[in-house]
Amino acid sequence: MGDVYCGRRGLGRIALALEYDGTAFIGWQSQPTGRSVQDALEAAIGQMAGTKVRVHAAGRTDAGVHASRQIVHFDTDVPRPITAWVRGVNSFLPKTMAVTWASPVPDAFHARFSATARHYRYLLLNHPIRPALLHGRVGWLHSDLELARMQEAAGHLIGEHDFSSFRAAECQAKSPVRHLSRLDISRQGDLIALDFSANGFLHHMVRNIMGSLLHVAKGKRDPDWIAELLAAKNRTLAAPTFMPDGLYLSGVSYPKEFGLDTEPLYRQGLI
Amino acid sequence: MGDVYCGRRGLGRIALALEYDGTAFIGWQSQPTGRSVQDALEAAIGQMAGTKVRVHAAGRTDAGVHASRQIVHFDTDVPRPITAWVRGVNSFLPKTMAVTWASPVPDAFHARFSATARHYRYLLLNHPIRPALLHGRVGWLHSDLELARMQEAAGHLIGEHDFSSFRAAECQAKSPVRHLSRLDISRQGDLIALDFSANGFLHHMVRNIMGSLLHVAKGKRDPDWIAELLAAKNRTLAAPTFMPDGLYLSGVSYPKEFGLDTEPLYRQGLI
Repeated sequence: MGDVYCGRRGLGRIALALEYDGTAFIGWQSQPTGRSVQDALEAAIGQMAGTKVRVHAAGRTDAGVHASRQIVHFDTDVPRPITAWVRGVNSFLPKTMAVTWASPVPDAFHARFSATARHYRYLLLNHPIRPALLHGRVGWLHSDLELARMQEAAGHLIGEHDFSSFRAAECQAKSPVRHLSRLDISRQGDLIALDFSANGFLHHMVRNIMGSLLHVAKGKRDPDWIAELLAAKNRTLAAPTFMPDGLYLSGVSYPKEFGLDTEPLYRQGLI
Repeated sequence: MGDVYCGRRGLGRIALALEYDGTAFIGWQSQPTGRSVQDALEAAIGQMAGTKVRVHAAGRTDAGVHASRQIVHFDTDVPRPITAWVRGVNSFLPKTMAVTWASPVPDAFHARFSATARHYRYLLLNHPIRPALLHGRVGWLHSDLELARMQEAAGHLIGEHDFSSFRAAECQAKSPVRHLSRLDISRQGDLIALDFSANGFLHHMVRNIMGSLLHVAKGKRDPDWIAELLAAKNRTLAAPTFMPDGLYLSGVSYPKEFGLDTEPLYRQGLI
C-alpha cells in the first residue's frame, strides 16, 4: 500500500489500484458460472455510479491468484469526488478486495494496452509441514531445494524468448514471444520469493516456469535443462503447472507521463 | 515453524504444537454451538487413535484469534509412530489448522498448568485503506499513531499489577494479578507488531490493553493515563476492547527440563 489518492473530481476515465485475495474467486475475468473479481468490482462501482460500468484490467489473474497491486480503468460520465471511487467503492466490495487509490487519467490511458511491464511475485513455503496460517496464500513444497541451482536455471529465461514450453494450451496470445526482464529469487527463513517482470505473460507462464524451476531446485534436472526447454518450444517436455496459491500480481509499469503509483508493492508481513 | 519431530513412539502423554487461522472458528474451547479449534483437533486425533481423545491447551484463544504456536497435550494408550500425531492428524484437520510437531512428554507435563509464560503478538495495519489480502489477519486503524507515546504508555504495564481495568466481565480467573514481562512495539512499513509476554493473561486482556494504548497513540489521552487505569482497577474507565483480527498466540514457555521447542514463533511474511 503506501498509496494516497488526490482530491480531484473523478469523471471521464478513472484508473484504480486494486488489492485482492484470489482464494474465493474464479479469477479476474467475468464468466457465466461463479464469482469473478471483475464481477465484484463492476457491481461495486455500478452501485457507486448508479449505472452499469465496464472495467478493464492490466492482468487477467487466474482462479486462486492474488493481487497486491492490480491496475484497472473504467469510463464514467457520472461526476463523483475521487474519494467515492476509493472509500465509496470499498464499502460495496467484499472484505477480501479493496481499491487502494483512484486517479483521473487521459483517454489515451488503457490499463491493459498502455502497460509496458507486469510484475508477479511467487511466494513459496519450503517446510515439512503444510501451511495453515498461510493456507491459500503461499505455494508449498517440503523437499530440500537448492536455490543456487534454481538461480542458475532462472538465468536462462532472462531476455526475449519464445516461451511456448511454458504456455498453457488454452493461451489466446497471438505470439509466444515475451521479454522477461527480471527473475529474482530471495529467501527469508522458510519463505522463498520469486519476482518476475516481463512486458507480458502468457497464460500460466509463471506457474509453468515455477514447476520446471522446482524440478531443477530438487535436483531432478540440471539448470541447463531450462535452456533446452526454451529451445524445444514444446509444453509437453516441461514440468506440470505449479499451484496458484502463492502467485501475486504485484504491480504494472506504465509510461511516466501518466504519473501513476503502479510499481510493484510488497509488504513485509509479520505473521 | 522450523520445527522437527522425532522418531520416538507416541504413547502415554503427547504434546503437540499447533498453528491455526482462527477466522472460521468460534475460539479454542468446545461449545454446543459452532465449530471450535478444540473440536476439530479432537476429531482429527480421534480418527488417528480410533478412540475418543481429550486435549488440553496452554491458551484458550477467543473467536477470530490465531495461533502460530499453541501448545496442547493429550493422553493415549494407542501406540502410534510419532509421525502419526503430525502428518496423520494433519490429514484429518481443516486446511487452516496444522500440527507442526509432536513429542512424548512425562505425565508431570500439563500444557496449561506447566506453562511459565504465554506470548501473544498483536499485528496492526496502520493505513488509510482497510486490509484486503490481510483481512482477518491484522487489526486495522487509519488514524495517525504516535509510537513513542504508545511505548511510554506500555512502560507502565510492565511488572506485576492488578489488571482489573483490562479484564473482561466474563473472566473466570481467581485473581486479577498478572506479571507482564514484555510489551515490545515495532514497526515495518505500515504494519505495527506489539509483543506481549506474561505468566498468564486475563480474558480479553491483550485486546483491552490494545484499545487503551491506541487511545494514547492517537493523542486522545496522555501516556500516564495507563498508570491511572491500572490504579483505578475499573474496567469501565478504560477504552473498548479492540478487534480480535490481529491477535496471535505465538508461543508458550515451559521449564527447560521438558526440552520442548515452544518459544515464540514469528514468520517474516512477504505478502
